Amino acid sequence: MQAPMSQQKLEEIIKAVKTLLDKQKVVEELIHKQPSAQHQLVESLVHRQHLAELEQQLQKLHIADLSHTIEILPPADRMRIWEIIRYQRGGEVLLDISDSVRQSLISTMNEDELLKVLSPLDGDDLTFIADDIPHDVLQKCLENLTHADKAWFHSSFSYDEDKVGHLMTNEMVVFHDHQTIAEISQLLRTLPELPTHNDKVFIVDSRGLLAGALTLQSILMSDPEIMAKEIMVKDLVKFSPDDDAGDASKAFERYDLVSAPVINQRGKIIGRITVDEVMDYIRGESTEDMLTMAGLRGEEDIFAPILSSARNRFTWLIINLFSAFIASRVIGLFENTIEQLVALAALMPIVASVGGNTGNQTTALIIRSLTQGQITAHNTWHLVRKELSIGVVNGLVLGLLVGLFAFGLYQNYYLASVIAAAMLLELVFASLVGLSVPMLLKKFNKDPALGSSVILTACTDSVGFLIFLGLATVFLFK
Amino acid sequence: MQAPMSQQKLEEIIKAVKTLLDKQKVVEELIHKQPSAQHQLVESLVHRQHLAELEQQLQKLHIADLSHTIEILPPADRMRIWEIIRYQRGGEVLLDISDSVRQSLISTMNEDELLKVLSPLDGDDLTFIADDIPHDVLQKCLENLTHADKAWFHSSFSYDEDKVGHLMTNEMVVFHDHQTIAEISQLLRTLPELPTHNDKVFIVDSRGLLAGALTLQSILMSDPEIMAKEIMVKDLVKFSPDDDAGDASKAFERYDLVSAPVINQRGKIIGRITVDEVMDYIRGESTEDMLTMAGLRGEEDIFAPILSSARNRFTWLIINLFSAFIASRVIGLFENTIEQLVALAALMPIVASVGGNTGNQTTALIIRSLTQGQITAHNTWHLVRKELSIGVVNGLVLGLLVGLFAFGLYQNYYLASVIAAAMLLELVFASLVGLSVPMLLKKFNKDPALGSSVILTACTDSVGFLIFLGLATVFLFK
Repeated sequence: MQAPMSQQKLEEIIKAVKTLLDKQKVVEELIHKQPSAQHQLVESLVHRQHLAELEQQLQKLHIADLSHTIEILPPADRMRIWEIIRYQRGGEVLLDISDSVRQSLISTMNEDELLKVLSPLDGDDLTFIADDIPHDVLQKCLENLTHADKAWFHSSFSYDEDKVGHLMTNEMVVFHDHQTIAEISQLLRTLPELPTHNDKVFIVDSRGLLAGALTLQSILMSDPEIMAKEIMVKDLVKFSPDDDAGDASKAFERYDLVSAPVINQRGKIIGRITVDEVMDYIRGESTEDMLTMAGLRGEEDIFAPILSSARNRFTWLIINLFSAFIASRVIGLFENTIEQLVALAALMPIVASVGGNTGNQTTALIIRSLTQGQITAHNTWHLVRKELSIGVVNGLVLGLLVGLFAFGLYQNYYLASVIAAAMLLELVFASLVGLSVPMLLKKFNKDPALGSSVILTACTDSVGFLIFLGLATVFLFK
Repeated sequence: MQAPMSQQKLEEIIKAVKTLLDKQKVVEELIHKQPSAQHQLVESLVHRQHLAELEQQLQKLHIADLSHTIEILPPADRMRIWEIIRYQRGGEVLLDISDSVRQSLISTMNEDELLKVLSPLDGDDLTFIADDIPHDVLQKCLENLTHADKAWFHSSFSYDEDKVGHLMTNEMVVFHDHQTIAEISQLLRTLPELPTHNDKVFIVDSRGLLAGALTLQSILMSDPEIMAKEIMVKDLVKFSPDDDAGDASKAFERYDLVSAPVINQRGKIIGRITVDEVMDYIRGESTEDMLTMAGLRGEEDIFAPILSSARNRFTWLIINLFSAFIASRVIGLFENTIEQLVALAALMPIVASVGGNTGNQTTALIIRSLTQGQITAHNTWHLVRKELSIGVVNGLVLGLLVGLFAFGLYQNYYLASVIAAAMLLELVFASLVGLSVPMLLKKFNKDPALGSSVILTACTDSVGFLIFLGLATVFLFK
């Protein structure tokens, strides 16, 4: 396996790869244009030489760095690299790379190519990417697995992607509670290799149920004659395969775990989850919040084809467009008022814009707190009161400022009072909506971030115009 | 140390705590109101009994769960709990709790109380929270440390918060490369306890420089007679204390590390960083992005006092307000145009609103990609072309829809064409700004998320109004 390397070294190799790819492009174009066969031959030789150099550079990369290199290259270059490495390390790269890039790589291959790429993967690996493999190909891959591997695939694939059962691996080491440290050390030495992130071995009792765990440290540091049951840790954090992956990741963070057992209802150990899976999950989930809040599917590939990116963004833009239509009709109701005082048209976006931003601040805070499990039935009311109070405080200050601005411009005392009052009401409303949108989404079992920014501005725009123009209609003319 | 527990068990305890706190509140009020001394005595007894029960419940909690419980309680309840636990476990809680809650807890104590709470902490712990401790108190804490501990504090505190040097710990185990596995095992057994997340011991050569590492696994599984230098891993991922914590966290994620050595320029090992610190860093950094994008300081406590929360949000709202003033003046330029056709006032927010959302989608995507190091000098142009193309595609489709909407409402073919064209131009502009804002912030060494949403809508609002009303002035009247 290729070793990890420093960031600097990695950047050098990526630069070298990029230069080779550029040269390659030039040569390919030349071959295409060359009329004479002799010239073509020369260029082909150059071409092949570049390929060999490229292969050599790529050989040096750790699988994670190879995946990263593929991710940051534009589609055409991605394919060049993919074609060089796919039959040697393609399977591992597919495991490591982001969902959207994996899907695009898989879509470029026919069935035979894909089968060849996937052949080194076992049941545990396949679970991880099964959603992206065409059904026929997946079936053929499964046929090549051992019986146990196939069984593992079916059991773990039956869990949803956000369940512990989907994240767990079958690689673990288990001993009996009556074995001594010396026996366990002896047995460990006969194993070919321990799985990664194996900070502890699990201990089962005579009925085969999980009884505790021994850290490698305790095996190293304890008296060899002592029995496992005497020194094992009994208070283990353990999970059920139906537990939420988000809850498990919180437990890993909170208790600083490296690995934890997964048990079934009877208490029999059926798998293990490790900190690397959990870290990927946290990274995915928290960046997803930011993207879904703006109305994007979580995992957009920065180099996805234009039409697929446009489609990904389209849904929420359409919703946004219709909400803007409604806001526009709200203004339409007051066309008579605006005709009488066109300054209203110039001032109204101020109310809507500050309202939108206020609401967005509250929404971002609530999504964060929901993700971290900090909002409970007990403290919701306290939170509502607090956010409303902030809305009032900021509404008073910003209302005063906007009133002064309006008065300075139009020397109309009534107009200034109306916009100041509208600002106060709008900010209180925005705080309330900013709080409610993620909480309601959560209540209906949706992702609290889902398009929340779009839903929020839909409300704050329409209501902001309604408050301001409504107050103006009532108080300015008559 | 209290053991970790299941989410369910934790929730039960928190509920019990909350009930006791509520009862306590009632009793306290009664004591306050009771006129007779005898009644007061009875209530005091009840009060003390509740306190004892509360203490008992809190005793059961792991330090991480105790911190969580404090975080999710409103301020008054937080203080009740803090006063019960501060002299037993306050120091550890301060290490574990979020920055903003730590600051608020510290601010409630006088110097003596704080010194007593901090007394169990060592130099490594103090580095972590030193920023939040008043200067005088910190000096007195340091005086009580051993010489080595004090030196460690000064060296690691000299690094910025986002440097590896700040995150590293001095707890590690080091052996020499000529020692045999048997000798190392023997020595390990004499140690009182290994530090947490100690998946490997470090090996130094005869000059005292880092030569490699032995995983606990390899110690357990190797021939006892072999020398460390023969089986140690030499290709280690190592960091310098000046390395960026973000880069280090990427390396931990990419190479699935549990711990890694920190070395100085000579190659001498000076510390160790572990996956739990890195996980906290990732969680902090990615949720921060969402908050700072909306214009909030990263770590707002959900129960911060109203005025301090209002202040936290105020800066960006003021910037927002001034940008809205500018947008308002842009509209003001066209008051004559609007007076002639008031429908323009009703339609103009549609252009600005969809423009703002389009830009926000791009910004969220770019921030994510910057955080993950996916944007390089090589692929920037490709990215610009791609985002502009998406702007064009979505601009054409949404422009057509908005044109139809306007035509349906006002039966004015020219007006419909003007708004369709404005929408197309606005979305292309919004894509460009959405891309530029985080990239420019990054270029000037600012957090790319910093208020980006506010800056973005400032641009898309003003320019959206300018494009739409400008086109209308030129093409609709004359």
